[in-house]
Amino acid sequence: MDPPINYCSSCGATVNLRVPMGDTLPRHVCNACGSIHYRNPRLVVGSLPEWEDKILLCRRAIEPRHGMWTLPAGFMENGETVAQAALRETREEANANIALGDMFTLISVPHINQVHVVYRATLIDLDFSAGDETLDVRLFTEEEIPWDEIAFRTIALTLRHYFDDRRSGIFRFHPGDLPLP
Amino acid sequence: MDPPINYCSSCGATVNLRVPMGDTLPRHVCNACGSIHYRNPRLVVGSLPEWEDKILLCRRAIEPRHGMWTLPAGFMENGETVAQAALRETREEANANIALGDMFTLISVPHINQVHVVYRATLIDLDFSAGDETLDVRLFTEEEIPWDEIAFRTIALTLRHYFDDRRSGIFRFHPGDLPLP
Repeated sequence: MDPPINYCSSCGATVNLRVPMGDTLPRHVCNACGSIHYRNPRLVVGSLPEWEDKILLCRRAIEPRHGMWTLPAGFMENGETVAQAALRETREEANANIALGDMFTLISVPHINQVHVVYRATLIDLDFSAGDETLDVRLFTEEEIPWDEIAFRTIALTLRHYFDDRRSGIFRFHPGDLPLP
Repeated sequence: MDPPINYCSSCGATVNLRVPMGDTLPRHVCNACGSIHYRNPRLVVGSLPEWEDKILLCRRAIEPRHGMWTLPAGFMENGETVAQAALRETREEANANIALGDMFTLISVPHINQVHVVYRATLIDLDFSAGDETLDVRLFTEEEIPWDEIAFRTIALTLRHYFDDRRSGIFRFHPGDLPLP
């Protein structure tokens, strides 16, 4: 959760919420230096690593959803590309070596100001292990997926698209939105 | 350009740049309340509106690239989906009524911490006009595109993909990155 904007990060003066000239939405504007402090949606980027008929999931060691299973993913950082973020997060969460495939899902989650992007990926070897934010990393066949313990709805949706596409023999790109919970 | 982070937006105290516990990158952390102030890439979202063999471009009334031509696009806002952002920006920049089509390009621009997304779209009517941040809105055939006056490299790349795909008869989704200038 982002800290509130009570003070200007540039000069330390107080801010007011108002519509800047030429803008259409209220923003936090500094009462002293006039700096405008925007807040915008964040990208959460990860991968769906395959090994034969199995896919890799991570069990979360952090909140939210501690103890539940997810794909390796996390916030995209400044200075990197979306693909680089997917590779980095997969390495950080699962110490996994992957070859990145096509972008697979891109799902807007407007009520939490996020956009979730997952790439298909292929594990290069079985030398993976839990990173600092992960309790366990395991490979699952479709039948083994712990559907009731998937941490996030975007991840469950991505997994459903994956197994549906695999059955159909054609992997497509799936952009979409998550409805309100 | 984002204002610098010299002070905590939550309590107004000074911040230091350091790696928070469990993190891997330096962040601005408040010396008093401990709030962590993250900065992440922003999404710029827009559309490529078609009318018969023409596409709609906007001439920019604002910096950067005042006077140059671009597709209607702008920063995605909190609380909206990527598709909603494309519709809103097209309405704001060009007062244009469109039916949104498929996501067409998604281009990382890491040196400015942005990801640019453009949807294909169809104009519903010819009742468009310049919005507040636009000098002019016009329809262009491929031969008329002012290639030397296109405001951004991601937009030029998107237009090239569009005309290439149109010639081939198959529109694909084009994810990619922009190399350093």
